[in-house]
Amino acid sequence: MTQTKRNIAIIGSGLVGSLLAIYLRKYGHTITVFDRRPDIREVEFSGRSINLAMSNRGWKALKEVNIDEEIRKIGIPLDKRAMHVIGKAEYYQKYGKEGEAIWSISRGVLNKKMIDLAENAGVEFRFEEKVWDVDLPNAQVFTGETEKGEWKAYDFDLVFGCDGAFSRVRHKMQRRSRFDYSQDFIDVGYKELTIPPNADGTHKLDRNSFHIWPRGQFMFIAMPNLDGSFTCTLFMPFEGDVSFESIKTKEDAKHFFGTYFPNVKNDIENLMQDFFKNPTSAMVTMKCYPWTYWDKVALVGDSAHAIVPFYGQGMNAGFEDIYVLNSIIQEQGDDWEAIFKNYQEVRKPNGDAIAELSYRNFIEMSSKTADPMFLLQKKIEKRFSEKYPEKWIPVYSRVTFSDRPYSEALAIGDFQEKIMQEVMAMPKIEEKWDSIEVENKILKALEMGH
Amino acid sequence: MTQTKRNIAIIGSGLVGSLLAIYLRKYGHTITVFDRRPDIREVEFSGRSINLAMSNRGWKALKEVNIDEEIRKIGIPLDKRAMHVIGKAEYYQKYGKEGEAIWSISRGVLNKKMIDLAENAGVEFRFEEKVWDVDLPNAQVFTGETEKGEWKAYDFDLVFGCDGAFSRVRHKMQRRSRFDYSQDFIDVGYKELTIPPNADGTHKLDRNSFHIWPRGQFMFIAMPNLDGSFTCTLFMPFEGDVSFESIKTKEDAKHFFGTYFPNVKNDIENLMQDFFKNPTSAMVTMKCYPWTYWDKVALVGDSAHAIVPFYGQGMNAGFEDIYVLNSIIQEQGDDWEAIFKNYQEVRKPNGDAIAELSYRNFIEMSSKTADPMFLLQKKIEKRFSEKYPEKWIPVYSRVTFSDRPYSEALAIGDFQEKIMQEVMAMPKIEEKWDSIEVENKILKALEMGH
Repeated sequence: MTQTKRNIAIIGSGLVGSLLAIYLRKYGHTITVFDRRPDIREVEFSGRSINLAMSNRGWKALKEVNIDEEIRKIGIPLDKRAMHVIGKAEYYQKYGKEGEAIWSISRGVLNKKMIDLAENAGVEFRFEEKVWDVDLPNAQVFTGETEKGEWKAYDFDLVFGCDGAFSRVRHKMQRRSRFDYSQDFIDVGYKELTIPPNADGTHKLDRNSFHIWPRGQFMFIAMPNLDGSFTCTLFMPFEGDVSFESIKTKEDAKHFFGTYFPNVKNDIENLMQDFFKNPTSAMVTMKCYPWTYWDKVALVGDSAHAIVPFYGQGMNAGFEDIYVLNSIIQEQGDDWEAIFKNYQEVRKPNGDAIAELSYRNFIEMSSKTADPMFLLQKKIEKRFSEKYPEKWIPVYSRVTFSDRPYSEALAIGDFQEKIMQEVMAMPKIEEKWDSIEVENKILKALEMGH
Repeated sequence: MTQTKRNIAIIGSGLVGSLLAIYLRKYGHTITVFDRRPDIREVEFSGRSINLAMSNRGWKALKEVNIDEEIRKIGIPLDKRAMHVIGKAEYYQKYGKEGEAIWSISRGVLNKKMIDLAENAGVEFRFEEKVWDVDLPNAQVFTGETEKGEWKAYDFDLVFGCDGAFSRVRHKMQRRSRFDYSQDFIDVGYKELTIPPNADGTHKLDRNSFHIWPRGQFMFIAMPNLDGSFTCTLFMPFEGDVSFESIKTKEDAKHFFGTYFPNVKNDIENLMQDFFKNPTSAMVTMKCYPWTYWDKVALVGDSAHAIVPFYGQGMNAGFEDIYVLNSIIQEQGDDWEAIFKNYQEVRKPNGDAIAELSYRNFIEMSSKTADPMFLLQKKIEKRFSEKYPEKWIPVYSRVTFSDRPYSEALAIGDFQEKIMQEVMAMPKIEEKWDSIEVENKILKALEMGH
């Protein structure tokens, strides 16, 4: 589908902004990307990020513009979780079927690559130029050194807000009447830490695993990088008995890592250093509606639907926004009002669904992983799903290894959960969990369907 | 309790701002009230407001500073609803017990009075001075002509944000991490209209009634003023078959009022004029947390908890905030950090509860008033409550004629609703609704308690 050439601004040169630039450039539009930060290719990456887990939806969006193979070179496939449980040997849980994996990619490395690709395609990047205001009906963008100083005005035909959870573009839309908005923080924060490579450059832990140290109220994870290091994240309450607030001295930190993470004790010095150097960050679920303004402005990615990171879907959801927006462009052609209307109607329920799924995963990880009945339920589900893979696809696989709508994954997940609740209510389920009786009960319930 | 004298800023000279000024002035604090608008006493009131319904909580807060008698002089007690149903004669529904009434007061008249009272008490008002920014940890306030122009800085010890649903103070707090916030608009808008007095200055409709014309998806209400006029509000969807959007011409408006409000047809000319002159306003539920910042800044009233107006509790809830804040001051003395902490912990659940109750009343009015089973349920409740007034206080009375916490009204209301659902599920309830069997079922359910 050819389109009338437009002059388009994209606010934000992050992953979503740079991929959208690559997509729109294919139609021959003139693209200017603004970012208040310096060019990420010229500075050391600040590292306030959990490593990315690229899954099906992300790959599909990259493939559409033929850059998936290029990106695979900077990723490491992880086909399993490596569980580090105190008092047990490290053990593994396969993510999906044979060949299914999520990919660990450093956010910084990926972002640099994407900006290179966009620039090669003819996209103009204006770094260190902060957008302070957007005139929505006129698609006019105002930039300047400071909020109160002189501003420069740019006229565009279309403006895309890809400026993340604290979007300035959305902020402007939010001041309008009848704009629904919410931001909800969780009481858990996170901090990035690093496990360096061995002296010979190899990885200190299994290279093709997503490493998890679940500890009830808190959790430590590690994802591999190409250079042999692991990017780790410590998730922990801000306040309380064991919390970021409670760890004040090097002594506290040493005790904390020594007690809860004995198998990383050789790296404690390093972890401790990071602990006091790196910031503690907050996590928010952000929802809003509408996502667009007339035929002029649209929000894409985190600016429209920021989610907590416990499903590893933030970037994947943003990339899928772009993929879907592009399919709508293919159908609707030049009518940007229709394109934007259709885009927000299709994507909003999916943004809400992945927000809900991600939040539930946080609750599950925080409060249920130690519950034996919950673990038993997971075991029954797994057993059934392995025996009847066509009848029972676990929600995790629906989200991670499929491109069906998130809202469908949520709805089917709820249905499966209802069945499992009935199963768990069976008398003496602990004894007969792997019996034919249980299996038949699930088969019967599935047959009766919704 | 004496307090160390403080230099206090109140942002907003509305009802909550001026009452808070009167309260705090009693302790001898220096009070400056900023408002971006001109002095309401010197301009014609813009009239973008539903008339106020002062009820118990509001009166109690006024009484505490001995201004209730003064204010009663500008109000009219309404002891009943006057229902205007098509095809039926006007009929009345008493609000409560003998002597219980809500009071109709014009927002403009009340606000002028309150500013007079505050000024007489020694409060300084700075009108037409817009606060653009607040330095939260330093309780510093910045005002100026324009957002980008020169600003003037003021230093205070404490700052109160009484600047309403679109609060600038809250807006500043909202940019902080870990601040929860939501704004949800409903699809119904409202427009203020006026029914003028008779030539002799008397009211055209019963003076001591809250007049309602329920019409399913939309609704018209009228509240009396002292000058013989009625301030009316038309609530109607923004879009759809019968909606603000669908009434485009004088012809449309004439048809609309003639069809749905035959008993005000003598005033149609007037209503039509207002219809096209006055703005259509939106309604929002706004929630946030925390409400305070250290010992420096606190939100009071709509800025902390804006609600839809269908319970008539917006101002009452704001006044109750002040009453409760003052009782905490009496207990805690000079420790403003403790005062603010206590204040937000006590009031937040009540702000959430009245928001929920108000929203439910909107849903009830929009979709249930035409449902015969719903009306039957109300009839059964009323009958029971009249026979056993000590056993069943309707939620409306708990909200309107009591000073028990809103959260309690909501919880007990939910319990009563659960009982009524069981009653309504009784076979042939339509035939035996006034039987001893039904009565006993309710008594039994109440006895079993929560």
